[in-house]
Amino acid sequence: MLNQSAAMAEEAEVVKNKQVVLKNYATGFVKDSDFIIKTDSTMSLKVPESSSKGVLVKNFYLSCDPYLSFLLQKSDSSLEAQFSRFSLGSTINGFGVAKVVDSRHPKFEKGDLVWGITGWEEYSLIAEPDSLFKIEHTDVPLSHYTGLLGMPGLTAYGGLFEVCNPKKGEKVFVSAASGAVGQLVGQFAKLTGCHVVGSAGSREKCTHGSVLQNGHVLLSFHVWPLASFSVEIAFSISSITQDPVDLLKNKLGFDDAFNYKEEQGLDAALKRYFPEGIDIYFENVGGKMLDAVLLNMRMHGRIAVCGLISQYNLEKPEGLYNVASILFKRLRVEGFAVFDYLHLYPKFLDLVLPQIRAKKITYVEDIAEGLENGPAALVGLFSGRNVGKQVVLVARE
Amino acid sequence: MLNQSAAMAEEAEVVKNKQVVLKNYATGFVKDSDFIIKTDSTMSLKVPESSSKGVLVKNFYLSCDPYLSFLLQKSDSSLEAQFSRFSLGSTINGFGVAKVVDSRHPKFEKGDLVWGITGWEEYSLIAEPDSLFKIEHTDVPLSHYTGLLGMPGLTAYGGLFEVCNPKKGEKVFVSAASGAVGQLVGQFAKLTGCHVVGSAGSREKCTHGSVLQNGHVLLSFHVWPLASFSVEIAFSISSITQDPVDLLKNKLGFDDAFNYKEEQGLDAALKRYFPEGIDIYFENVGGKMLDAVLLNMRMHGRIAVCGLISQYNLEKPEGLYNVASILFKRLRVEGFAVFDYLHLYPKFLDLVLPQIRAKKITYVEDIAEGLENGPAALVGLFSGRNVGKQVVLVARE
Repeated sequence: MLNQSAAMAEEAEVVKNKQVVLKNYATGFVKDSDFIIKTDSTMSLKVPESSSKGVLVKNFYLSCDPYLSFLLQKSDSSLEAQFSRFSLGSTINGFGVAKVVDSRHPKFEKGDLVWGITGWEEYSLIAEPDSLFKIEHTDVPLSHYTGLLGMPGLTAYGGLFEVCNPKKGEKVFVSAASGAVGQLVGQFAKLTGCHVVGSAGSREKCTHGSVLQNGHVLLSFHVWPLASFSVEIAFSISSITQDPVDLLKNKLGFDDAFNYKEEQGLDAALKRYFPEGIDIYFENVGGKMLDAVLLNMRMHGRIAVCGLISQYNLEKPEGLYNVASILFKRLRVEGFAVFDYLHLYPKFLDLVLPQIRAKKITYVEDIAEGLENGPAALVGLFSGRNVGKQVVLVARE
Repeated sequence: MLNQSAAMAEEAEVVKNKQVVLKNYATGFVKDSDFIIKTDSTMSLKVPESSSKGVLVKNFYLSCDPYLSFLLQKSDSSLEAQFSRFSLGSTINGFGVAKVVDSRHPKFEKGDLVWGITGWEEYSLIAEPDSLFKIEHTDVPLSHYTGLLGMPGLTAYGGLFEVCNPKKGEKVFVSAASGAVGQLVGQFAKLTGCHVVGSAGSREKCTHGSVLQNGHVLLSFHVWPLASFSVEIAFSISSITQDPVDLLKNKLGFDDAFNYKEEQGLDAALKRYFPEGIDIYFENVGGKMLDAVLLNMRMHGRIAVCGLISQYNLEKPEGLYNVASILFKRLRVEGFAVFDYLHLYPKFLDLVLPQIRAKKITYVEDIAEGLENGPAALVGLFSGRNVGKQVVLVARE
């Protein structure tokens, strides 16, 4: 038997392993050219004996998240407490959905579906897999574990319920409302009985499902629920409007929505949509929007600071001038991160899975097909090119 | 008897009533010349029958508080939810300590000592006295009910304990630390076992107890405890250093303190005093200090926004640039006002009175003598001229 095992180990299949490798640290906005698609790597589909607790996974979906911007910049150390900086010449990593191909970890076995931090490559060896979540519910699209049922979903849940404590009838404003987190915040707030308005920017000069310059089919997004995963893809390319305002109002159930790029002034827009003021602001963008929101908050309002995506690529951030509103309106402005709420994941699933099954929650994804289109999808996040959660499809199950 | 009462009412004593009247709304910094001292008014020392619940009080002490700045400016409406705007030609008002001379209110009777909103004048008729607090403890200087035992004391208590929830060993930074609120925040935090550093600005070109241009004795401050009120005044003019850094470290028990006006850069100063970062910042000043503090906060730090005095008289507030720290360090920044904590006043007294009697709390006041010196004392608040709580003595009991 020992001999046979040894023979099997020796015979472990070796496959090609396409990878997204960091070529340059980004300066300002991340560019496609900051990455290389490396096609000549290989991977043995066996966890090496030297990796006592490793798992080897086949990646299905990768998640394009704003925080990746920081790990791609040389100068910023803001997030080093939570993440390791990417190294030049190495494969980048991020949240993703994958299947275990081989495991030396007692918690995981071959065939398990997992989500968590993995590599931007076809196969990944994960040396410390303790932070991976095992996927127990597969009657939902697996891609949702990069969004609705993954880090963005738990972020929306923690930020809205733990930070903002919404009450029925309160007025809630969500920026980047068609994004991975925003669309869920709005729906969770609606389920709580709040009045919800979202802002989003329209996708510019871009037709749904069109082939872009870099040749990839950018938009294959879908609306849950769908009969099966394969149907989902077919469906996604055919039917959904790409206008985020229409999407927010007519697909996601927001009470109202506006395109911030079409407004003469943000203060005036907010006064129009919130004549009585805002109780809760779920902040994803920062900059001028935050400054305008401060002027329109109500007494004892809460602002959950989830992201400041408009500021991430600026050399110097924009100034915030209406700080006095925090004092005069006795506001609470609170930064948070999903890491504070990981212990709530089971409770979150208990809330959200029945809502998904009852078709009371819709989730919009923007799926870029193929690992080689990953860099463009990630870059697009910072110009607001995506509508819905930006995902990269690496392989189908 | 009825006839006799009526006769007494007719014979009610009429006295001269010096008043501080608003002449101009302030533009930018409040100036002495925005006020008139009106000396020809009179007051009948009887609540008129038309005022069914009024009380008539003799004012002893008036409190110079930063919020008054807003009520003196024409354009600002920030605080109108809490306060009525001052009218041109009318007596201004604010917190003060007074004695009831006559009352038609069931809660108050002649001889009661009270603190709360009263007029900047020798005698005030208070039509709606429900918000006045009756002074039950007179073994402490009455002036303390404008500070330690009044609005600033409850502000310090609510802001530190309710907003910041300090824990033993945490690092606390207080700006305007020698001011009415700051000096108490520091001492409360020390009682909690925190490491406390304060910043203050030195009084410029001003000698302790000196006669200033406008001819009033500016500095008659004292350190509690003192044997009696009359001794307090005599004592106050003779012995205390005016250097706020020395005061913070050697009289108020702060672990360390610095004069922000002598620092090359606030960020560098904070890094020197808080090499491990700040857990709690009690914000009294705003502007560049807040921006520097944001860079030096620790993960999950709390910022209680009590005041932004550096910004109140600017045409346009300074921009805040380090907003991303709120996100990355998951900070909570919370504006508050004493009005949220009025219900805690008895609990606050239970905490603070024994500490005062045990001489574990020191309180520094800066008493301007005479109502006619009130405007200069108030103006001085915004140039940082006071050391300690700025009070105006109107009359001795």
